[in-house]
Amino acid sequence: FHQNKMQTVTLIPGDGIGPEISSAVVKIFQAANAPVSWEERNVTAIKGPGGRWMIPPDAKESMDRSKIGLKGPLKTPIAAGHPSMNLLLRKTFDLYANVRPCISIEGYKTPYTDVDLVTIRENTEGEYSGIEHQIVDGVVQSIKLITENASRRIAEYAFEYARNNQRSSVTAVHKANIMRMSDGLFLRKCREVAESYKDIKFTEMYLDTVCLNMVQDPTQFDVLVMPNLYGDILSDLCAGLIGGLGVTPSGNIGANGVAIFESVHGTAPDIAGLDLANPTALLLSGVMMLRHMGLHDHAHKIQKACFDTIREKKVLTKDLGGNSKCSEFTADICRRVQDLD
Amino acid sequence: FHQNKMQTVTLIPGDGIGPEISSAVVKIFQAANAPVSWEERNVTAIKGPGGRWMIPPDAKESMDRSKIGLKGPLKTPIAAGHPSMNLLLRKTFDLYANVRPCISIEGYKTPYTDVDLVTIRENTEGEYSGIEHQIVDGVVQSIKLITENASRRIAEYAFEYARNNQRSSVTAVHKANIMRMSDGLFLRKCREVAESYKDIKFTEMYLDTVCLNMVQDPTQFDVLVMPNLYGDILSDLCAGLIGGLGVTPSGNIGANGVAIFESVHGTAPDIAGLDLANPTALLLSGVMMLRHMGLHDHAHKIQKACFDTIREKKVLTKDLGGNSKCSEFTADICRRVQDLD
Ligand SMILES: CC(C)[C@H](C(=O)O)[C@@H](O)C(=O)O
Ligand SMILES: CC(C)[C@H](C(=O)O)[C@@H](O)C(=O)O
Repeated sequence: FHQNKMQTVTLIPGDGIGPEISSAVVKIFQAANAPVSWEERNVTAIKGPGGRWMIPPDAKESMDRSKIGLKGPLKTPIAAGHPSMNLLLRKTFDLYANVRPCISIEGYKTPYTDVDLVTIRENTEGEYSGIEHQIVDGVVQSIKLITENASRRIAEYAFEYARNNQRSSVTAVHKANIMRMSDGLFLRKCREVAESYKDIKFTEMYLDTVCLNMVQDPTQFDVLVMPNLYGDILSDLCAGLIGGLGVTPSGNIGANGVAIFESVHGTAPDIAGLDLANPTALLLSGVMMLRHMGLHDHAHKIQKACFDTIREKKVLTKDLGGNSKCSEFTADICRRVQDLD
Repeated sequence: FHQNKMQTVTLIPGDGIGPEISSAVVKIFQAANAPVSWEERNVTAIKGPGGRWMIPPDAKESMDRSKIGLKGPLKTPIAAGHPSMNLLLRKTFDLYANVRPCISIEGYKTPYTDVDLVTIRENTEGEYSGIEHQIVDGVVQSIKLITENASRRIAEYAFEYARNNQRSSVTAVHKANIMRMSDGLFLRKCREVAESYKDIKFTEMYLDTVCLNMVQDPTQFDVLVMPNLYGDILSDLCAGLIGGLGVTPSGNIGANGVAIFESVHGTAPDIAGLDLANPTALLLSGVMMLRHMGLHDHAHKIQKACFDTIREKKVLTKDLGGNSKCSEFTADICRRVQDLD
């Protein structure tokens, strides 16, 4: 007997270890009776009319209907001219906010404890504009594009996030001392938006200073908002503080509830198919997804079970310091989820 | 009786705590009988013919003659259109390589031990080109400029540095998966130069991956070479690992022996003039300078005295965890330097 009616989610298992960790997540969701029905879609770049790269129509159509996706790792293309599918997905659905909570996991030893921060990265422009030229032989320009609209939108997202998640401060990360116009515009929009959120403390900090302070004392940070590349860097740095990409969830959020949640680690081809992968990052991304869908109880239950398994240290995958298989780790979480009922 | 003949060095004391820490360094050099004669110059931006910002002619003239400078912190201008003097100095003397060794200091507690790496940052172009435009209202572009020549030059510097400093590997740091042309060009030049240094191991790594790996295990890195902005970020991150900018030296190196060594911390106006500042970063920059000048014995003596003072923990400035004044810390180092004679 379920109170919640089933909601469809597009599942993109991905490459390498993607299918294994996806099926681990599906099992755990099932054990938790999460009212989610999965629509599995593969995503490889195809060439559409006019030679533009696009994601396969059946994946696009599923996402357009479900609005919500959960995605495993996709291999990064090496061939020149071939797009990164990760980027193409963000672009196709205008997923403008990349959100990565970094929270220390009890019982998982790292040089830092009590990390509890969220990086919010502008996900559509900046250094990722893709506009580059050769001026003359041996002289190349890449263009960083910053717009008022995208800057205001991400600043608003960050402050709304802070307010809705009981967080008390937002730090804008920038190099407006160097890129006075572009980062200057970004910073100005953050300041303007901050005016409407008097309940949230607003600070500004140079990116280099953030990096320095972050490794000295990450507990001083709360919500951080920044242009695209800075977010790419800082989110990985922060993931490193709590144990790496194997345990760090991520969400790409667009307008009108559209969102794709993803593990940001690689496809680990060396261990693919060997039942050795760690599904934690994808599972915790799924937990973020459940919260996004308003399914807070299921989110809480799954997260608790996962953290309990990690804290008890009895059934852990190799990268977490144990000897267990992915399926054993998954089964342990399933058992705990059921016990929590 | 000195074997070495006196060499002139341009001393730019700088703002805030600059004069105090500069005079501490002068005292310690004197105690060590370093054959250096200081030529003190102030540096504030002035407008030259055609309205271009320049450094004062007497400072330029001194540097042109001495070729070597030691510089305290300069305050960053807030007024729009006013240049950063730090950047103007790098530009004026074409100091294309920014070199920052990060080595754990024994006895100074940080979350990391055994850090021993060097960041080598391209110091003249990239995101620091200063070229920005507004396309239309609310749409701004900053241009990242990468040239073959500057990329080859910094790559060669990094490999030469590795070879001359008994280091075994060079890692090129990039985002050529995103900025395929600009970072692609930089990376290609690194690969080409690597071909001529078969004795040095060459690796490539994405900037985000470097950040993640750096906070998880910095001991895996040796020499890192990268474009301007990435160096700005990574050098601060690495400084954070060993105790911050108060203990981290820096050198800006140009062609034909021209170089300016500087502490990269701020001017600390709140404690300026109170005899509370920590001169270590400027002193260790001076030690780098002595090595650059071929004065290895003096460099060694001063460095040893400074590290001994820090390790013994009896006479430390506040930021290092002690209660002593700048002058007391300085006197302790002077005493040790003399004892080493
Ligand atoms: C895979 C890559 C294109 C991507 C990025 O640079 O954004 C990744 O590093 C990330 O952070 O999601
Ligand atoms: C002061 C500032 C202009 C400078 C920079 O951004 O390069 C500083 O951060 C540095 O690293 O030397």
